[in-house]
Amino acid sequence: MVKAYDVIILGAGPAGLTAAIYCCRRALKTLVISKDIGGQIAKAPEVENFPGFEKISGAELSQKMLAQAEKLGAEIIFEEVNAINKEKNFVIQTAGKKYESKSLILAYGKTPRSMGVPGEEKYSGKGVSYCANCDMPMFKNKTIAVVGGGDSALDAAIYGSKIAKQVYLVHRREGFRAAEITMRNAKKAKNLSFILNAIVKEIKGNKFVKSFVIKDVNTKETKEIPVDCIFVEIGYEVKTDLVKHLVKLDNYKQIITDNYCATSHPGIFAAGDVTHTPIKQAVVAAGEGAKAALSAYNYLQGNKPIITVDWGHQK
Amino acid sequence: MVKAYDVIILGAGPAGLTAAIYCCRRALKTLVISKDIGGQIAKAPEVENFPGFEKISGAELSQKMLAQAEKLGAEIIFEEVNAINKEKNFVIQTAGKKYESKSLILAYGKTPRSMGVPGEEKYSGKGVSYCANCDMPMFKNKTIAVVGGGDSALDAAIYGSKIAKQVYLVHRREGFRAAEITMRNAKKAKNLSFILNAIVKEIKGNKFVKSFVIKDVNTKETKEIPVDCIFVEIGYEVKTDLVKHLVKLDNYKQIITDNYCATSHPGIFAAGDVTHTPIKQAVVAAGEGAKAALSAYNYLQGNKPIITVDWGHQK
Repeated sequence: MVKAYDVIILGAGPAGLTAAIYCCRRALKTLVISKDIGGQIAKAPEVENFPGFEKISGAELSQKMLAQAEKLGAEIIFEEVNAINKEKNFVIQTAGKKYESKSLILAYGKTPRSMGVPGEEKYSGKGVSYCANCDMPMFKNKTIAVVGGGDSALDAAIYGSKIAKQVYLVHRREGFRAAEITMRNAKKAKNLSFILNAIVKEIKGNKFVKSFVIKDVNTKETKEIPVDCIFVEIGYEVKTDLVKHLVKLDNYKQIITDNYCATSHPGIFAAGDVTHTPIKQAVVAAGEGAKAALSAYNYLQGNKPIITVDWGHQK
Repeated sequence: MVKAYDVIILGAGPAGLTAAIYCCRRALKTLVISKDIGGQIAKAPEVENFPGFEKISGAELSQKMLAQAEKLGAEIIFEEVNAINKEKNFVIQTAGKKYESKSLILAYGKTPRSMGVPGEEKYSGKGVSYCANCDMPMFKNKTIAVVGGGDSALDAAIYGSKIAKQVYLVHRREGFRAAEITMRNAKKAKNLSFILNAIVKEIKGNKFVKSFVIKDVNTKETKEIPVDCIFVEIGYEVKTDLVKHLVKLDNYKQIITDNYCATSHPGIFAAGDVTHTPIKQAVVAAGEGAKAALSAYNYLQGNKPIITVDWGHQK
């Protein structure tokens, strides 16, 4: 019989690793299970908005957090999780093994939806970006494209128009799913051109992105346009099927948490992009990781949680 | 007529400086007004729980964030704020000047709570201290007392036991609200004596503290104990009188915010220790600073806020 961990953290991005740092400092027996290190931020070549670091690669920032968690005593294993269940303890099933824990922190993030076109994966981090907040400032006076038709695409295009020389906003439909005022602001930007009813077919380049090919969905004509960067803003997917029998999800399948990062299930906490927190940024995720860890510690001490959300079953 | 800022941030701790970083990256004209740099964390000699830094002094971490914000274009001025009002713009009145802004981010933290006993104010800075991290090194081989029962009190007592000749830890209850590992470390310290179920009644001295009087809450007996210094570690208060005519506060006078760091007043956002966020940690404050900045940007774009709290007047 394997001794149960105090806490198992799923995910090793800023949320998971910060949770690990805080759990270990509270002397909890802590295991982190993750597919990779760093999550989304590990893919960012230059991070300039994490406080304390003027400029650092996402990979290096992730490694620093990992080293910090390991030095404090966190165990880290790299495996895919196949099942999560509540027996006496929480039981995490990976391909090869079962792990038991008295509490859980879900911090395994989200994945940006990709277009699935040739060149997209190859140039990811080399001109193809899924995070305007992270990468836009690098493209001062350059030519950029933003792909998508929702608020985040419009927002990225407007943001880009203030920094870049020229912005193309490529959307597969005629109409946008964005707020009126956002639309108005987008139309006001002189260096922002709309390419509507068009889909991206291919991304080309040498070492970095040089151009992309679009196809008009009506005329079927294709055109190659030189760009320095393409921001793909077509939404995210969270993979919460593994936990949907345990915790409440919102309409976007994101995990609902309260201000203490507690989920609807006692002993399960969640932090970062996998939650319904609206702003998906590394430092926001890290802050939530700290909260989730201290809440898990509080739970393990047997302290009553401070209820800030009525989950229904706690009455 | 002075041109209004897009955003004025009050406070230059992790919340305020992270907000400044995010505001500047969104090309907002940004002014930070603060009494000091770093807030609470600047006083910590060793920070080991800010993700990305295995060990750094709070002062150095603060300087890094400041440099980062300034490099991105944030203006920073060091003044006390006397009044905050909403006219056409928000108007911030300092001793010498008025500043105008289209939006505000309140991120000026909290201040240590005092005991309110005779002699406390008189000897403040003359043996009575609210910052063990700042003042402990002055009391090498002296006799000190620490008052409080939470993590920061225990931390201060352990820190003191390594420097002072004798440490008394005075707590009004039998049990402590501190981490297991901290408790174990406190019990191991040979020159650390626990005085439980006791409250401080008075602080005495000449030019400096010479002794303090404690009262046993059960037996009602009082006792005078010679000490050179008393560290008061009984929590914090937020000074929100300046903004209480503008934003809703909770029972502890903390600013109530929603999940986007919006307050009850359109255009005013808040982040970090000054808010009702339950966990007062630098990385949590930094995460909120990022949220507040992006929400302020969204407000300045004229976008409708996403209402997550019913403030009453917005129906």
